[in-house]
Amino acid sequence: MNRENLQRLLAPKHLAFIGGRSMARALKRCAEGGFKGEMWLANPQHDELEGVPCVRSVADLPAGPDAVFIATNRELTVSAVAELAEKGAGGAICYASGYAETGEEGEALQKRLLEAAGDMALLGPNCYGLLDYLHGAALWPVAHGGHIVEKGVAVLTQSGNFAYNVSMSDRSLPVAYMASVGNQAQLGVAELMDVLLDEPRVTAIGLHLEGLKNVPGFARAAYKALQKGIPVIALKTGVSEIGAELALSHTSSLAGSDALYDALFDRLGVIRVSGPVSFMETLKAAACGNLPAGPSLAALACSGGDAGLIADYAERNGLPLPKLVDAQRAELAEVLPDYANIANPLDFTTAIWGDGPALQKMLDSALRTPADAALLVLDYPGEETGERAQCDLLLELYCAALKRHDKVGFIASAFPELLPAHARELLHSHGVAALQGVEDGLAAWGRIAHYRQRREALLERGEAARVPLCPLALDGQGRLLDEWQSKQALKPFGVPLPAAVLTTPGQAREAAVDLGFPLVLKAVSADLPHKTEAGGVMLNLRNEAALEAALLTMRENLARHAPQVAFDQVLLERMATPPLAELIVGIKREPGFGLALVIGAGGILVELLKDSRSLLLPTTDAAIRDALLSLRSAPLLTGFRGRPAVDLDALVEAVRAVADYACEHVDSLLELDVNPLLACADGAVAVDALIRIAE
Amino acid sequence: MNRENLQRLLAPKHLAFIGGRSMARALKRCAEGGFKGEMWLANPQHDELEGVPCVRSVADLPAGPDAVFIATNRELTVSAVAELAEKGAGGAICYASGYAETGEEGEALQKRLLEAAGDMALLGPNCYGLLDYLHGAALWPVAHGGHIVEKGVAVLTQSGNFAYNVSMSDRSLPVAYMASVGNQAQLGVAELMDVLLDEPRVTAIGLHLEGLKNVPGFARAAYKALQKGIPVIALKTGVSEIGAELALSHTSSLAGSDALYDALFDRLGVIRVSGPVSFMETLKAAACGNLPAGPSLAALACSGGDAGLIADYAERNGLPLPKLVDAQRAELAEVLPDYANIANPLDFTTAIWGDGPALQKMLDSALRTPADAALLVLDYPGEETGERAQCDLLLELYCAALKRHDKVGFIASAFPELLPAHARELLHSHGVAALQGVEDGLAAWGRIAHYRQRREALLERGEAARVPLCPLALDGQGRLLDEWQSKQALKPFGVPLPAAVLTTPGQAREAAVDLGFPLVLKAVSADLPHKTEAGGVMLNLRNEAALEAALLTMRENLARHAPQVAFDQVLLERMATPPLAELIVGIKREPGFGLALVIGAGGILVELLKDSRSLLLPTTDAAIRDALLSLRSAPLLTGFRGRPAVDLDALVEAVRAVADYACEHVDSLLELDVNPLLACADGAVAVDALIRIAE
Repeated sequence: MNRENLQRLLAPKHLAFIGGRSMARALKRCAEGGFKGEMWLANPQHDELEGVPCVRSVADLPAGPDAVFIATNRELTVSAVAELAEKGAGGAICYASGYAETGEEGEALQKRLLEAAGDMALLGPNCYGLLDYLHGAALWPVAHGGHIVEKGVAVLTQSGNFAYNVSMSDRSLPVAYMASVGNQAQLGVAELMDVLLDEPRVTAIGLHLEGLKNVPGFARAAYKALQKGIPVIALKTGVSEIGAELALSHTSSLAGSDALYDALFDRLGVIRVSGPVSFMETLKAAACGNLPAGPSLAALACSGGDAGLIADYAERNGLPLPKLVDAQRAELAEVLPDYANIANPLDFTTAIWGDGPALQKMLDSALRTPADAALLVLDYPGEETGERAQCDLLLELYCAALKRHDKVGFIASAFPELLPAHARELLHSHGVAALQGVEDGLAAWGRIAHYRQRREALLERGEAARVPLCPLALDGQGRLLDEWQSKQALKPFGVPLPAAVLTTPGQAREAAVDLGFPLVLKAVSADLPHKTEAGGVMLNLRNEAALEAALLTMRENLARHAPQVAFDQVLLERMATPPLAELIVGIKREPGFGLALVIGAGGILVELLKDSRSLLLPTTDAAIRDALLSLRSAPLLTGFRGRPAVDLDALVEAVRAVADYACEHVDSLLELDVNPLLACADGAVAVDALIRIAE
Repeated sequence: MNRENLQRLLAPKHLAFIGGRSMARALKRCAEGGFKGEMWLANPQHDELEGVPCVRSVADLPAGPDAVFIATNRELTVSAVAELAEKGAGGAICYASGYAETGEEGEALQKRLLEAAGDMALLGPNCYGLLDYLHGAALWPVAHGGHIVEKGVAVLTQSGNFAYNVSMSDRSLPVAYMASVGNQAQLGVAELMDVLLDEPRVTAIGLHLEGLKNVPGFARAAYKALQKGIPVIALKTGVSEIGAELALSHTSSLAGSDALYDALFDRLGVIRVSGPVSFMETLKAAACGNLPAGPSLAALACSGGDAGLIADYAERNGLPLPKLVDAQRAELAEVLPDYANIANPLDFTTAIWGDGPALQKMLDSALRTPADAALLVLDYPGEETGERAQCDLLLELYCAALKRHDKVGFIASAFPELLPAHARELLHSHGVAALQGVEDGLAAWGRIAHYRQRREALLERGEAARVPLCPLALDGQGRLLDEWQSKQALKPFGVPLPAAVLTTPGQAREAAVDLGFPLVLKAVSADLPHKTEAGGVMLNLRNEAALEAALLTMRENLARHAPQVAFDQVLLERMATPPLAELIVGIKREPGFGLALVIGAGGILVELLKDSRSLLLPTTDAAIRDALLSLRSAPLLTGFRGRPAVDLDALVEAVRAVADYACEHVDSLLELDVNPLLACADGAVAVDALIRIAE
């Protein structure tokens, strides 16, 4: 695909529609929606449809159109695409279904479709298409809501129905582009994101995903967004087991467990939301394009009830409410009644309702609070009350005051439906986000208000710039390395190991004297993955006699519990000192998605805390450090109850060494566990390790 | 207050309004809203207002009205109340503010108001009043939304603005009553709940609270609701520190930390929600009155995107989705296209959109799933699309199918605003909850779907029937009992203690021989609350020599770290065996709210897990057992990693003994801590205890 062709599709000077009456109507909707360029309709049987003149074939079009919607059946779609490519069209949307989503025959047809497109851009098949509200080009088979905007968000979704609902939603989200990506035969989420990020009028990107087809491409695009400071908001479904199954059958694109999506999103600063409402409201918080520098708020409401909600939700979402200073309190006391609660959040009561000068004075005082943004909570009553004009007045004064004070601001209604469309449009024209529902609104603002600081931290951490490895599936169970082999494999990468010697039972005593007591005796065999359970580990042997006795007991243990093991190799290791914390470090391979480094609390805490973090590889020391310090059990690392702190640098280095080994062996590593990795005040040491590698 | 008077206020045959033009308009709104009884307007200066004839005074009213709205100033309100009481009115709503919420003078006036009311019911002052949608009586100063219903929920709120917004909300919540309770001078949340629960047309109760004024009364009313099976849904603010401060100044009613509200609500099965949307949607899920027997769902949607959302939210909210059986799969395959995903949730696609017989066949098959309820996710497109009739058809078929299959059902739109009013009203007329937003809707359904089972469990647990103690505030710091005194105080209640003897350092050796080794030596003094830190505890002394050495060291330790302590008493205790789990049991006194028993994980887990549960006293053994088993660290109690389980009966008994002591000393107990309480396979033992008691 030629990138220029995709750009033509996204900023078309002419449109063509191929199909019947529904396409004539689609063309007319573009005219009504404000598309300024030329539009053509192609139909082999008619000279005109619904009053729109038709050409008989693609060949008859006056030029290769920038953007085409093809609404014919799946076979004819393939030939239309071929003709369009021949004609020099920019891009085509294939509405027909019956391709890869239906099985082998369809897959073959999709392959032909893709070949037919050549370097022409192709969206779909099996999709609703593209709504381009920057140019008024609705390459879309049915009705849609929304209208031309100057700037706005780009929404990409794997569900045509979701796109339809977004377009019909009554939330005044300024949408610049919306694409339903269908089967993503050629253009996918990653490719579209990449090009949309070059359009300066796109202020944020919203993704509704059931899965990703192209993790590295997505990561590159998301990193580009991070560099540009364009928030990416993702609603990813398939969290539940049933949901994951459905996603697989619906879009055949899912790879990777849901936890790895979290790891991917975290790494790239992608903001994950949990539903359609948080998706819309979070996009709205970002859509005006003027993001706040930080999270603090100066908040206003006309009732104590609203102020109480603001206070709770502000705290929940990490939005500090700086206290008013005495001068503000004095000023506000002058203009507000006795029973007003002069605080932040401010309950300015309804006593000054409709009183312009008093409201302005109140706003000027409240907005002097040194906060990153201002919030007004306001609900419109029904039209029949005749009180809406007073709400309008307050909004106008609020917007003007924000300008005077050069402050980022937003509005939230306590009840989502009590902020009517005309008010939202007015607010958006002033660059003030009109959020619906104080609970969802403050949650949405919280996500966006932390974006800038998070972005800086992520860029500094360096991990986002590195494209995640995307390993292939490997056949077979592979081969298990024994503990000695595993440790020897890890050693060159810098994994810290106890002083050790591999020997035979017969020579163990001599070797032990060289090594020094106390020590640990372990049976070594690839046939013995659970050596502790089989009695193949003896700890804290303090002298030769203890070693002799241990060798005898171990021989008996193995004879009983693991007769398959020839007791011919033993590992002697210097006994480690009691650690400050025990960790588990593992590598998880998710074919088609990533190689994940899993860092977790070890010992008793594994089960009680379920305390682990996943990082996709490659990663950075800074990311490993942050992951360690974000464990629930992190207090054990930083000096718990008067104990010393662990050597965090050494611990990071040890974990990074495991990651380095995994990256180097991405083509063969099936499984890796270092358990435990002991964290001490003077270093770290990997006491046990196990690697499974493809044959 | 006479209960009959309150019943008259809530089912009035005649209304009176006292005030000016706004009251004439309020009266006319009642007429328009369908109130069938007599209505009078009293105004001292006019014969008529806005076309409504006036009497000049309360004395001139033809009878003592059942319900009155008084909109005069705060002084005149007092005299009007007195006259109404004299006249034999049922109840009055006092709109005026400037009473207890403003300080001492206002408090005195509120006292006079209360006296003037005598046994007449009185709502307010400082409130918006009462909307009674069963009888069409809007005792309310301003416009309001909503209309007469046959049955519905009762909403009680401490914020007039919240009530106003609920009435204006566009969610079709059937409201039977809504009261803004203001200062709760006489009628409060508890009193209103109690009477409303006797009205069989009230299907659920919604509370918006900043705090409670009357915890025992609330508990009695909530228990009555639990007995009757009427869900109580509470939105309680003041979770955050700032929010708690605001609530205190706004309603002067807050007592008790937010965590104790959780304890109170849990005990009584009150469903806590976090915001206006979840408040409305959860009430709606309950409003029809036909609660599902359990949580499982048969779910339907017309898109894969929606099915994915359903699957995720169902799991998150504990709503199982039983698998379809083969017969259903076969039937559904006949009527649905190839690309439909035949599962639960079912994506029935838009292929059969508008096809009545096919839709009916699909519904009949899907609803045969043995689930407690059915869910259909459906979003209406804009009216301009002309596709709403097809949505209406599906709704009609869905409601009819639910009736045929005798199934509880509900609807959720993916986007809250895409379920229009006419559709909601239609659904509610069929007893089908019309929930807005699939995420909020499934969360709301989850709360209600677990209600019945939870109710049964709570009734069985027995705790809900017991009215929580509501201790008074006590002056002063009180007196600290030393460890020995504390243990002696707890002993008669059955708190298990180690074998011990109190002696002097000089006689310790002799006493130790009687007690037996190994043992623990502790310095005893009320001046030594942190004895471990001062070196006043020596563990695991195995013989006389060790004891002698420990006595010497302890004397030195105390001389250095706690010179105020005369080292003249020591406690010798038999050393406890290593426990399976360590717990902390404490008592927290919240004057005006409750006495809370706090049960938490001890040892290292206190700080890492922040793992505790609070129970208000009195409580029951079953509640203590449930609290213990709901700790995050509960796996340690039930046989962790192959270890034995603790003696749970003994552990419950030990905790209950602490609770019994606290209940017996409610008038004097300031603080109590048993830390640690060791839980072993063969019992429990309180190793240390500390009590602070009022002088």
